[in-house]
Amino acid sequence: MKVKHVVVALTAFTLSAGASLALAQAKPEVLVKQRQAAMTLQGKYFGPLAAMAQGKAPFNGAVVARNAGFLEALSQMPWDGFDAASKGVKSEALPAVYSDAAKFKLASENLHAAVGKLVAASKGSDEAATKAAIGGVGKTCGGCHDDFREKH
Amino acid sequence: MKVKHVVVALTAFTLSAGASLALAQAKPEVLVKQRQAAMTLQGKYFGPLAAMAQGKAPFNGAVVARNAGFLEALSQMPWDGFDAASKGVKSEALPAVYSDAAKFKLASENLHAAVGKLVAASKGSDEAATKAAIGGVGKTCGGCHDDFREKH
Repeated sequence: MKVKHVVVALTAFTLSAGASLALAQAKPEVLVKQRQAAMTLQGKYFGPLAAMAQGKAPFNGAVVARNAGFLEALSQMPWDGFDAASKGVKSEALPAVYSDAAKFKLASENLHAAVGKLVAASKGSDEAATKAAIGGVGKTCGGCHDDFREKH
Repeated sequence: MKVKHVVVALTAFTLSAGASLALAQAKPEVLVKQRQAAMTLQGKYFGPLAAMAQGKAPFNGAVVARNAGFLEALSQMPWDGFDAASKGVKSEALPAVYSDAAKFKLASENLHAAVGKLVAASKGSDEAATKAAIGGVGKTCGGCHDDFREKH
């Protein structure tokens, strides 16, 4: 049991430093539920920003700043849920998540970097720059979904 | 459509200022899915801290600080999902969520306040104080579940 914990903890560490404790005892089905929860909430808080960037909703800088802060936290949450232990659980994750783990990790880092740029932009008052940063986040979402999620 | 947006926005505002845009277009089922996602992630990041406070896992200050930061964001996320529009959707929420909305709102504020204390404690080096703050958060979770969630 202890050896398994250490292995799981090390795997988690390569995905997200410090996440080991959250992962150590989670069952595969729980890992999937938790990572899907993080995706759901990223959608909740990114959706309205995408609408603003596309001109489908009026720009609201306060909402962008708040949601960007939430996304800063949320964008760190899904990745330890893609631990190899969850490979056999039915989900929309493509096998490439596990067979091309380095590319998947890079995609998750790209999201986090893009969210960082959005957080920075949302603290300023340049609406065009903020909308561009929203677009940057959207590209990393879509890029990763193209490669690693079943087509809808 | 516009009137409905305003009504929904005002309802949201009483629950969580600024949340209106995230809520304005969400269907009842989506509201429930989103609030359950926030609960799932609160469990993910609070569970290991509860284990530490209870002596079931070794204390790890770095994990407490990280998870407390995540909980600071997550503890703001469930509440607009309990909009009256979601009343008819099957979930574990008890009718009191809607019939005693003021008490429910207070419970959510108690959680957020307790998480704030945990964030502060986790930045120090007083393990006992941090464990006490973890216990304080746990009490607000349990208190709210007692009153507003179906018994398991």
